[in-house]
Amino acid sequence: MTSVKFDENGLVPVILQDAGTKQVLTLAYANEEALARTIDTKETWLFSRSRNELWNKGATSGNTQRVQSVQIDCDGDALIYEVIPNGPACHTGETSCFHETLSGERSKTASDMIGQLSALIKQRET
Amino acid sequence: MTSVKFDENGLVPVILQDAGTKQVLTLAYANEEALARTIDTKETWLFSRSRNELWNKGATSGNTQRVQSVQIDCDGDALIYEVIPNGPACHTGETSCFHETLSGERSKTASDMIGQLSALIKQRET
Repeated sequence: MTSVKFDENGLVPVILQDAGTKQVLTLAYANEEALARTIDTKETWLFSRSRNELWNKGATSGNTQRVQSVQIDCDGDALIYEVIPNGPACHTGETSCFHETLSGERSKTASDMIGQLSALIKQRET
Repeated sequence: MTSVKFDENGLVPVILQDAGTKQVLTLAYANEEALARTIDTKETWLFSRSRNELWNKGATSGNTQRVQSVQIDCDGDALIYEVIPNGPACHTGETSCFHETLSGERSKTASDMIGQLSALIKQRET
């Protein structure tokens, strides 16, 4: 079993990924206690580098996340929390913090396609 | 347009994600030149922290990646390269570097399900 390698600040990067759509929502960081609480409570716990404190994601906004699994990479220095989000992951109100494209064209997710089909159906109903 | 915030070592974390299956393959790092080369060549360029050098992923193994898009997060300190992989992303031969579960149960990807269905069909043929 690979053990988690925390960096010189005691942190490990965590990719928050929607368990259903597979969309990457946020890149954040956890310390040992945040990881332990996540595994224990099945809620997203992180460590805020800007506020320098433990952070129960969504505790303030209500946009909590249920953690379905925690995965670790081959060299133990990165994690994925697979989550079922209760609302947008981004403070801007967007589903994902990654909502801007620097280069190329973002491929559509299943939920993008479902959204487009729903919009088309609604449009044809009127 | 959000500009990329490189950290004190001149690096930004990059999530490599399969453009088709949406599976997260690797968490790696890029410096400014790696990012510029990625956008320019549409191949995955990174910066290896252990070897301290630019790294054209797959140049040695042949497991290159075609980069379909580069996305940036809301505060500019993380990127996603959406890629079409030409082989496994992990040096172990696994599709993804995240192939170990610390807690909970990993949700199935579309390709997991297709793999299981193919296996079942093959099994029934014999």
